[in-house]
Amino acid sequence: MVQRSRELNPCPVSTLTNLLSGPWTMYILWVLSNSGPTRFGALKRKIAGISTKMLTERLRMLEQEEILYRHYEPTVPPQVTYGLTEKAKELITILEQLDDLAQRWYG
Amino acid sequence: MVQRSRELNPCPVSTLTNLLSGPWTMYILWVLSNSGPTRFGALKRKIAGISTKMLTERLRMLEQEEILYRHYEPTVPPQVTYGLTEKAKELITILEQLDDLAQRWYG
Repeated sequence: MVQRSRELNPCPVSTLTNLLSGPWTMYILWVLSNSGPTRFGALKRKIAGISTKMLTERLRMLEQEEILYRHYEPTVPPQVTYGLTEKAKELITILEQLDDLAQRWYG
Repeated sequence: MVQRSRELNPCPVSTLTNLLSGPWTMYILWVLSNSGPTRFGALKRKIAGISTKMLTERLRMLEQEEILYRHYEPTVPPQVTYGLTEKAKELITILEQLDDLAQRWYG
């Protein structure tokens, strides 16, 4: 095993893997990655079984992490759309590789 | 957002991210990735704060997942060495990308 010069510091990556393994997180990212910007109601319908409370909480966390953006339209009734940020798109390309690996291991 | 033909199925990848976010898992993979095959005692010294019980349990889980191999030498006293499997090396290359991203986000 060649000694790699660059250390794989566990702390930041543990923060990220912990975030990703939170309930419904991967599912939400998967839906937005495949559907593009999506309204809250449509998102809830696409994620069978998630409660409004849980979806609201997960979206708020992902927004705070700047993985999602939230766009508010002051129409009547107001329309709120969620989408992946540029930051998230880089994460998605890595998650797709992890998904390929996981499909082979656990698919 | 171009509709991607290949869906990112969340289930297997959630299994993998849940496994990775288990306690000490990333740290153990990081040490073995950097140090190569390592004896139990040396592994415990390199992972500050982990208990013998926890390390034993995590190593057993990772061995069952075929991410680690366990080599037993019937010397007196017996010597047990742990190392990454080929399967793990593929995972590590992805985790390094995740680590780069996490360093930029959370480093």
